[in-house]
Amino acid sequence: MTDKRYAVIGTGAVGGFYGAKLKRAGLDVHYLLRSDYPWVKTHGLKVLSPQGDFSLPNVSAYASTQDMPLCDVVVVALKTTQNNRLPELLRPILKPDSTLVILQNGLGNEAAIAHSLATVIDVSHLTIVGGLCFLCSNKLEPGVIQHLDYGVIKMGLHQTTAHSEATSQRFTDLVQAFRAAEIEIETYANLPLERWKKLLWNIPFNGLSVVLDARTNELMECPGTLSLVKDLMREVTELAAKTGCRIDPSFPNHLLELTQQMFPYHTSMKLDADAGREMEVEAMFGNPIRAARQHQLECPQMEMLYHQLQFLNGRIKQGHAT
Amino acid sequence: MTDKRYAVIGTGAVGGFYGAKLKRAGLDVHYLLRSDYPWVKTHGLKVLSPQGDFSLPNVSAYASTQDMPLCDVVVVALKTTQNNRLPELLRPILKPDSTLVILQNGLGNEAAIAHSLATVIDVSHLTIVGGLCFLCSNKLEPGVIQHLDYGVIKMGLHQTTAHSEATSQRFTDLVQAFRAAEIEIETYANLPLERWKKLLWNIPFNGLSVVLDARTNELMECPGTLSLVKDLMREVTELAAKTGCRIDPSFPNHLLELTQQMFPYHTSMKLDADAGREMEVEAMFGNPIRAARQHQLECPQMEMLYHQLQFLNGRIKQGHAT
Repeated sequence: MTDKRYAVIGTGAVGGFYGAKLKRAGLDVHYLLRSDYPWVKTHGLKVLSPQGDFSLPNVSAYASTQDMPLCDVVVVALKTTQNNRLPELLRPILKPDSTLVILQNGLGNEAAIAHSLATVIDVSHLTIVGGLCFLCSNKLEPGVIQHLDYGVIKMGLHQTTAHSEATSQRFTDLVQAFRAAEIEIETYANLPLERWKKLLWNIPFNGLSVVLDARTNELMECPGTLSLVKDLMREVTELAAKTGCRIDPSFPNHLLELTQQMFPYHTSMKLDADAGREMEVEAMFGNPIRAARQHQLECPQMEMLYHQLQFLNGRIKQGHAT
Repeated sequence: MTDKRYAVIGTGAVGGFYGAKLKRAGLDVHYLLRSDYPWVKTHGLKVLSPQGDFSLPNVSAYASTQDMPLCDVVVVALKTTQNNRLPELLRPILKPDSTLVILQNGLGNEAAIAHSLATVIDVSHLTIVGGLCFLCSNKLEPGVIQHLDYGVIKMGLHQTTAHSEATSQRFTDLVQAFRAAEIEIETYANLPLERWKKLLWNIPFNGLSVVLDARTNELMECPGTLSLVKDLMREVTELAAKTGCRIDPSFPNHLLELTQQMFPYHTSMKLDADAGREMEVEAMFGNPIRAARQHQLECPQMEMLYHQLQFLNGRIKQGHAT
């Protein structure tokens, strides 16, 4: 186990947090960074957490995967908006039988990444694992991750055609290694269902919070937006069912009750928009919409939110260009 | 003709412009104002227009309809958001056979106003006329209206059960008087169709411009919002057809071409929102949505825009309350 080599691609609020835990557990971890590279190379990583702060003064930091060694486990913690860079980024560090762990929001990332990787390497013996992070954390400054709450990762093997015994073993090893590093892992044979359940909340609340510049409690309190949230949840539930994922009919109400009890909250997409960061519109809205079209299901309100977010995302990207 | 007495209820960018033209033509016009009352009572009205500026130093201005005489023609140029005040405002000035001219945007205003007036007066012999103004004007300062462009009013008799000869005559007289005052009038037997044609533009462009904080050209240039505009136009066209108003199938494209040629433009609803004025959400969206429900037609995207605007309107109203 411990002789395995780990890569963390994207050492921010997500990758930095989990990657630091892996390293603290004694694993051999190599971190890819961008702007924070010089600082982290010199000063290492620091995690501030209610579970206890810790520092890693010496870490293997890189500005390019060209300089990194081949790795057995590659954890992708980039935003989905960066996925077009993955073939180029991953080629230098993947072995034919590496385990690729994709910690991203939205739908269909594993398949899309496998597809694009296949243009540059042989992906047939990779073990591809999807992970959904339920984590509140942010990067305070270069190399400093503030962990606020939660942290569980819902993990599942990507449904490829051939699941070999070796693949299953690598998945088991991965889960064991993460758990040994005090990362809470829940495993799912049907990860897409979990993704849909997360989208059931993310689609209405992330989308409307951005378009209406609103916090979750405001969306819950106005009867018009509350009914819209419910309509969107209905569309997501129907669409998930079409793709073979049955969400329990009581689950939307359960989510609404949880949201009611939450502290007024800015969604992650809203935080991205406010910070002028490109939003994950394609992974969270575009891929579900494309699934709907494929199944010839009309999701007019989801589609509308998608187009509205595309418009606002275009404005954000234009802001970067000028 | 000229011995008739006219009232203008709401002497702003619309009522001030048309009311001043009526007075300039020698008619006996009485103006209701709110905050501008003291200024206008002393200094009168002024119109700045590419068709020629003119001043009316002495006008009959009022702060309350209680002080106004009974009038033969009552022109309502308040925003629809003020319509709940109309029974109280109009009772003191309406004769049993007055002509009531409702210059407002949106759908169903004539019927709703007749309905609410009926609770305080006998409306059976009123001549109710609807008018759709195609006018670019704004109030520069108290008593000063800046006319920028256009000005035609599309007018039609409100479809009540009993159209008497007297009603038709009063409508003809009204049109004649307005035309004599150099106000361009087009008359329509089917005014609701014209209202739907205006809504065909107003629903997508007013709605999306507010929700996305966008100008018309931006909505046209982004493929996502352009497709949304087209989808909304399709919903409006279908809904209009359900209510018996057939919009020519080539009309939406014609409107899009016109919009393409327009100078980047902030819609009236966007101007209201930016100024913190309550938006005309119910007349422009709520009434069409209620018509859809009545005809059991689903208009999910119009409904979504309605709920989004209700949310934003609630925030504007809250701003007034605090």
